[in-house]
Amino acid sequence: ENRYRIVISCPDQPGIVAAVSEFLYKQKANIMESNQYTTDPDGGSFFLRIEFECQRESDTHQLEEDFQSIAAHFQMDWQLVRVRDLKKLAVFVSKELHCLQEILWEYQSGNLMADLAVIVSNHEDARDLAEAYGIPFHHIPANKDIRQEAERQQLSVLKQYQIDTVILARYMQILTPAFLENYKNKIINIHHSFLPAFIGAKPYERAFERGVKLIGATSHYVTSDLDEGPIIEQDIHRVNHKDKAADLKRVGRLVERSVLMRAMKWHVDDRVIVFGNKTIIF
Amino acid sequence: ENRYRIVISCPDQPGIVAAVSEFLYKQKANIMESNQYTTDPDGGSFFLRIEFECQRESDTHQLEEDFQSIAAHFQMDWQLVRVRDLKKLAVFVSKELHCLQEILWEYQSGNLMADLAVIVSNHEDARDLAEAYGIPFHHIPANKDIRQEAERQQLSVLKQYQIDTVILARYMQILTPAFLENYKNKIINIHHSFLPAFIGAKPYERAFERGVKLIGATSHYVTSDLDEGPIIEQDIHRVNHKDKAADLKRVGRLVERSVLMRAMKWHVDDRVIVFGNKTIIF
Amino acid sequence: ENRYRIVISCPDQPGIVAAVSEFLYKQKANIMESNQYTTDPDGGSFFLRIEFECQRESDTHQLEEDFQSIAAHFQMDWQLVRVRDLKKLAVFVSKELHCLQEILWEYQSGNLMADLAVIVSNHEDARDLAEAYGIPFHHIPANKDIRQEAERQQLSVLKQYQIDTVILARYMQILTPAFLENYKNKIINIHHSFLPAFIGAKPYERAFERGVKLIGATSHYVTSDLDEGPIIEQDIHRVNHKDKAADLKRVGRLVERSVLMRAMKWHVDDRVIVFGNKTIIF
Amino acid sequence: ENRYRIVISCPDQPGIVAAVSEFLYKQKANIMESNQYTTDPDGGSFFLRIEFECQRESDTHQLEEDFQSIAAHFQMDWQLVRVRDLKKLAVFVSKELHCLQEILWEYQSGNLMADLAVIVSNHEDARDLAEAYGIPFHHIPANKDIRQEAERQQLSVLKQYQIDTVILARYMQILTPAFLENYKNKIINIHHSFLPAFIGAKPYERAFERGVKLIGATSHYVTSDLDEGPIIEQDIHRVNHKDKAADLKRVGRLVERSVLMRAMKWHVDDRVIVFGNKTIIF
Repeated sequence: ENRYRIVISCPDQPGIVAAVSEFLYKQKANIMESNQYTTDPDGGSFFLRIEFECQRESDTHQLEEDFQSIAAHFQMDWQLVRVRDLKKLAVFVSKELHCLQEILWEYQSGNLMADLAVIVSNHEDARDLAEAYGIPFHHIPANKDIRQEAERQQLSVLKQYQIDTVILARYMQILTPAFLENYKNKIINIHHSFLPAFIGAKPYERAFERGVKLIGATSHYVTSDLDEGPIIEQDIHRVNHKDKAADLKRVGRLVERSVLMRAMKWHVDDRVIVFGNKTIIF
Repeated sequence: ENRYRIVISCPDQPGIVAAVSEFLYKQKANIMESNQYTTDPDGGSFFLRIEFECQRESDTHQLEEDFQSIAAHFQMDWQLVRVRDLKKLAVFVSKELHCLQEILWEYQSGNLMADLAVIVSNHEDARDLAEAYGIPFHHIPANKDIRQEAERQQLSVLKQYQIDTVILARYMQILTPAFLENYKNKIINIHHSFLPAFIGAKPYERAFERGVKLIGATSHYVTSDLDEGPIIEQDIHRVNHKDKAADLKRVGRLVERSVLMRAMKWHVDDRVIVFGNKTIIF
Repeated sequence: ENRYRIVISCPDQPGIVAAVSEFLYKQKANIMESNQYTTDPDGGSFFLRIEFECQRESDTHQLEEDFQSIAAHFQMDWQLVRVRDLKKLAVFVSKELHCLQEILWEYQSGNLMADLAVIVSNHEDARDLAEAYGIPFHHIPANKDIRQEAERQQLSVLKQYQIDTVILARYMQILTPAFLENYKNKIINIHHSFLPAFIGAKPYERAFERGVKLIGATSHYVTSDLDEGPIIEQDIHRVNHKDKAADLKRVGRLVERSVLMRAMKWHVDDRVIVFGNKTIIF
Repeated sequence: ENRYRIVISCPDQPGIVAAVSEFLYKQKANIMESNQYTTDPDGGSFFLRIEFECQRESDTHQLEEDFQSIAAHFQMDWQLVRVRDLKKLAVFVSKELHCLQEILWEYQSGNLMADLAVIVSNHEDARDLAEAYGIPFHHIPANKDIRQEAERQQLSVLKQYQIDTVILARYMQILTPAFLENYKNKIINIHHSFLPAFIGAKPYERAFERGVKLIGATSHYVTSDLDEGPIIEQDIHRVNHKDKAADLKRVGRLVERSVLMRAMKWHVDDRVIVFGNKTIIF
């Protein structure tokens, strides 16, 4: 179908919506969904996401070209996406497979509108699962001593599969700034705590030590500041004094699964706009 | 300030947003917030709420007149509201005062952008509270034997205070269709269950009997079908086998308070559009 | 290990805890966890669940025999379970497999302390999944015209695998009272609504029609009154006006999965006591 | 009535429950509610809370004396409380009154089983509210320059009213270790974040800066480590990119109110046991 999304960020000023909607009207486009937000109509930043359907056969490049003058006029940072052109995802995973399992189910059920192209791991644990779902699996050893070599191989795999977005589904290795540069705001991590509480290693153990009454999970874009990137989604689950660290882990896995899935779905549907160190979710 | 809201419902078709945003652009209006929804871009119903600020001194009637031709062209059901013209509210209450108390706090704290004009009750219990907050209180006896006379007096009070919206804050009397006709989609009730479960009387007792694990509350517009009107907001709280009916009531009061307040705030901010027997919340 | 659970229901009266704890003390048992509840200490019903570990090698039959006189004295309805003797489960499923998938995943992860002995379905859809996890799969056609024959075969399979508990993981057939008699308070269903709202068929469609703001799921023991059995667990998820019936279904599946899993785990750990038409959850 | 609570902490070993329940049985006591927890039956710590009713007129001192030998045998840290002897509370408040309002409302509604004896503030803002509910109000100026003098006066007021427990209902001053020493595990604070995130000042502003998707509140016992004391209760509320810091504050107040109330109710009902830096909630 001729379904598109246009996602726009620009300095706010009067006339933006008028110009964009006039443009779409002239294209004979039906607006399916439209969301907008301004940090401040007087000199702030403006964000717009419109999902629309062209009634006639249309050409993405032609649309882009036609829109160019509006974009230039309003100094837009913008992107036009044809809905049927699915994002290509790579999932990085380590030994804990619950997030990967959830992703595979939702993918297979048709609830994740993306192309799950490849699974990469520094362990062999996920191979069977990947193969059961017919997804290519690449084992690339990685640890802090061989980081450069590992990342070289990973980037090569990402290139081979033309990957748009990398999902760190409990991948326990740190990525270097050099690696991150290739996928700015396109690497999604799931951190097993309610950030900014328990940044870093062993959050469940530390949550247990602190005696919290709720545990959480946070999905965020990865930046070179550990666990400090823009938050996409968070959620929590209630625990109590009877729960040991192992219980927090078990309950936490359920929260991790659902938080990561929601973040992924919003991302692949182009519903997440990064603004500074925050996200706007449309 | 020159801040307005326009709320529109009309048959969906291409060009609506273009026309409205062009109109606002010509008025030199800053769009503060805009939300839209369509049940189906192909022949469905379209809903739009825009909050905007005119940069120059503007006149509500002039704006309405100018907008008239667009409205007519798209067969719009629409309303223009100047934000500083607060809705006038009447709160009807019986003997349970927790919802009224919450309303008064939020009102006094400046979190309810409305004019709480009068409190009406068929009992004297709320008089002290009303007077402590300086709100006129009218005691109008009411029960099923004197319903007509009661409603005659109530309508007279509503007229006297030029009331826009009636809040039934645990007012335990049924209102007649004749009364409701005067305030279509402008009477908000809080029902102490998760509708459609436990329609009618004594929902907490019945929830206790049924052994539910969650109790809820529902705020909805009142129609002549008891507890069947369009739902604005719902929420729940977890309970367990130790909770007696009295405990459910006590916990439930907290849920009722927050659910009714959210529904009221959305209503007075013109964020609720009734469509058939459902609501769209912007 | 020598770990046991004793679960007791009896008329409340002074001395019960003293007698049971004295008994366990004489057995040199360590109490791992103990929960009790009384509907009314003065003539009500008393419930007790104790998990304990015998320090010496013990014999279940000997323990039961020794406890007999206490049980008789207090008119106890009681059960002693050796923790390592796992309950044998059968999962009945139809065409929707999300609950089964969750069960298999939790089972494989070691989070479900039971013996998942067999999967039964009136369709072939679940066969691959069952086989991937190495669980025997029996296809038994069932519909309302061949109910008796179907149940005869099902009971034969349940007997063959010595099944303790049947899980209806979105099994869309009604079971006859004759079938239910064999598994009183041992058949767990997941209903895809927040009971008692939307009893019966097509709850998501009806939730959509009603315009609810939360959708739910309910796990309960099956009785001959449709969807009226003792509720074990319920939960909800927030939805909004943008969600179509298909969206409610998709979100609802996540709620169903987690609600059924919690109910199952509590059941296999003997944490659920049925009292009248309600449950006590320890 | 002759209703009591006994709350016990001691090293775990076999025979504790047998001894205590035997004792209660001999006192002809009905057990209303009993909760227990062990960190580890093999050498861990054991906790027990029993609420019971003596059938005959009993004498608290006699009960305590009778229990003394059991307590000594098991090295118990224990406390016997007659339920009708309500705890005397002082509420410390500053300029934000929402928590105080909630406390007063619940107190007046009979939902807080305590004696709200006095309200203390370093400002005059709460005076009218205190007086409207008939609670003595003491204005004691306090800031970091006059901390010692302020605390001297505060302690004098606490002594005058024989205060058991101090509630810091958004009291924005730090208390010195010398002050805290007088009320170990008896000063309850509400912190306006999901601890350990956003320890210290201006948590809502920092939550806004970080772009979190949930905001929280934490009620805890105050220790000399700022915001590091044992957590009693926490809860959260969902926010989104449209919420400014002021919105987080407004929503947060609702969370603060309910979290503090739950913590207070559990505390006055002797349901909270402090163990190390954690709490057990019965």
